[in-house]
Amino acid sequence: MSKKKYAVGIDLGGTSIKIGLVDLKGKIIKKVSIDSCASKGPDAVIEQIVKGIRLITNKKYDKILGIGIGAPGAVKFKRGTVENPPNFPNWGKVHLGKAIKEKFDCNVYVENDANTAAIGELIYGAGNELENFIMITLGTGVGGGIIINKKIYRGETGGAGEIGHVTIDYDGPQCKCGSFGCIESFIGNNYLIGRVKKQLQEKRDSQLNKLTSNDLNLLSPQLIHQAAQDGDDFAKSIIVDCGLKLGYVLASIVNVLDISTIIIGGGVAGFGQLLFDTVKLSIKERVIKPFKDQIVVKPAKLKNNAGVKGASALVFYKS
Amino acid sequence: MSKKKYAVGIDLGGTSIKIGLVDLKGKIIKKVSIDSCASKGPDAVIEQIVKGIRLITNKKYDKILGIGIGAPGAVKFKRGTVENPPNFPNWGKVHLGKAIKEKFDCNVYVENDANTAAIGELIYGAGNELENFIMITLGTGVGGGIIINKKIYRGETGGAGEIGHVTIDYDGPQCKCGSFGCIESFIGNNYLIGRVKKQLQEKRDSQLNKLTSNDLNLLSPQLIHQAAQDGDDFAKSIIVDCGLKLGYVLASIVNVLDISTIIIGGGVAGFGQLLFDTVKLSIKERVIKPFKDQIVVKPAKLKNNAGVKGASALVFYKS
Repeated sequence: MSKKKYAVGIDLGGTSIKIGLVDLKGKIIKKVSIDSCASKGPDAVIEQIVKGIRLITNKKYDKILGIGIGAPGAVKFKRGTVENPPNFPNWGKVHLGKAIKEKFDCNVYVENDANTAAIGELIYGAGNELENFIMITLGTGVGGGIIINKKIYRGETGGAGEIGHVTIDYDGPQCKCGSFGCIESFIGNNYLIGRVKKQLQEKRDSQLNKLTSNDLNLLSPQLIHQAAQDGDDFAKSIIVDCGLKLGYVLASIVNVLDISTIIIGGGVAGFGQLLFDTVKLSIKERVIKPFKDQIVVKPAKLKNNAGVKGASALVFYKS
Repeated sequence: MSKKKYAVGIDLGGTSIKIGLVDLKGKIIKKVSIDSCASKGPDAVIEQIVKGIRLITNKKYDKILGIGIGAPGAVKFKRGTVENPPNFPNWGKVHLGKAIKEKFDCNVYVENDANTAAIGELIYGAGNELENFIMITLGTGVGGGIIINKKIYRGETGGAGEIGHVTIDYDGPQCKCGSFGCIESFIGNNYLIGRVKKQLQEKRDSQLNKLTSNDLNLLSPQLIHQAAQDGDDFAKSIIVDCGLKLGYVLASIVNVLDISTIIIGGGVAGFGQLLFDTVKLSIKERVIKPFKDQIVVKPAKLKNNAGVKGASALVFYKS
């Protein structure tokens, strides 16, 4: 593989498409962000992607080793299809990989965004030296990716790793997936912020009221983290609660998979050391005895532009 | 591989050791059951195993392709070690495979009993035609074994598949593993029978009182099944509750592994069609949408002597 080759990494989001030219070490050489035009349907989105790739590569395709796309929704890696991604109306099932390949003379890899995050950590990040790890991404949803023997574990239909929809309380709050008590229904951004908003009505002395200027619509994981760092007890209790619950689900997963390293990324991971310490403690308390002393919990290494870098890693991962 | 070859399958239990001579099709040609002598320590147990193998093979070792041992406790397959099996005092870590291999001129395979059950179904049973399945064994404990691409999935240290210790209620009853709300703490035999005993005090009209002649120490999964078949509502409600909860945990596991076939064995599986129907319904209700129509729940095919047959399968599995 020539050292001069680059990968194009594409982070497909409902609002914007982020496209980067990335080198073998995961360094972004050039980057653009363009409107997804999601409301105009799949053809318009594909047109935007094509436009973005042309922009970023300056039409010099000979240096492009391949194009990697991290997409929301149900993705079939082998076929390069993306099905019903949330926030993309009238989408159905789209052969995204094929559509892009027709325009550019290189390999195109399409993967779901949670697996993309795991592959990003495997190729460039906190999982680079590891044979096996469990990646968990804390955002609007709680995503998961499982690396076994340095390969992503896809399962029978490419849908494996849905750690966000492991229940920790069969009688718990209903999750948007239809089940009850999924970890996502506790710590997914919207569920978490919604719950904190309610609790704040009885926590008039919490700094979060001040930090949001009493406009609770401004509440975010970042502000919770800031309040906790300023010593706000309520904010700290939110982070500890998230960490404990995340530990409950991860202990179950470790018991099933016998994989002892967990990498945590995404917005809520910004809760910092208090979150990581609590997760580790919680897993250790709950996991079966033989695994207790092996648990390692690490933050993801790819932070800004993790989506673009992860998508570009799909190219180097397959190469 | 000559058709005349047999495998020796050994089911190591705290009370008795069951040893069988098994052919390629999983048919038991000859069988003995001898005292484990577990209270006398590992050397005595090993002596009993050796005695049993000699008995069953009639010292004609040339027809023996190998010896498979299914053992409780923490087993390292590669090293053939068995660590702290419950009901085996003063055991510590024993190189069981090596000790047996020294006596007989053939390969010896040692595996934990849950994985042994899964390999038994893979080689001779309900999983024979399958690439992937999740095996769950309902007994005193709730054991699990995961088959991926026709191979047992062992994880990093050989301890994978502990489905019994996946929590379905983080605030639930304490499990003997130390965690809370593990599925085993709900439907493991002792926990289940203990809970039913308590509930029966307020169910004076349940047939279970009659079937046990009001001696609740006689209560067993078999009697619960019998009462349910006779139309006893309380007995049926117990089975439905077990099925629902088993479904909750399996839905989580399917979401993580994307493996859609579940094989259920062990005593509580004797609850029959009502259990299987409820498990399937419960998984379908809880699993994420793309998996809903793919779920298959089957009873294990190896029933009597499943332990001996499964252990013998270790030999054919490796061959």
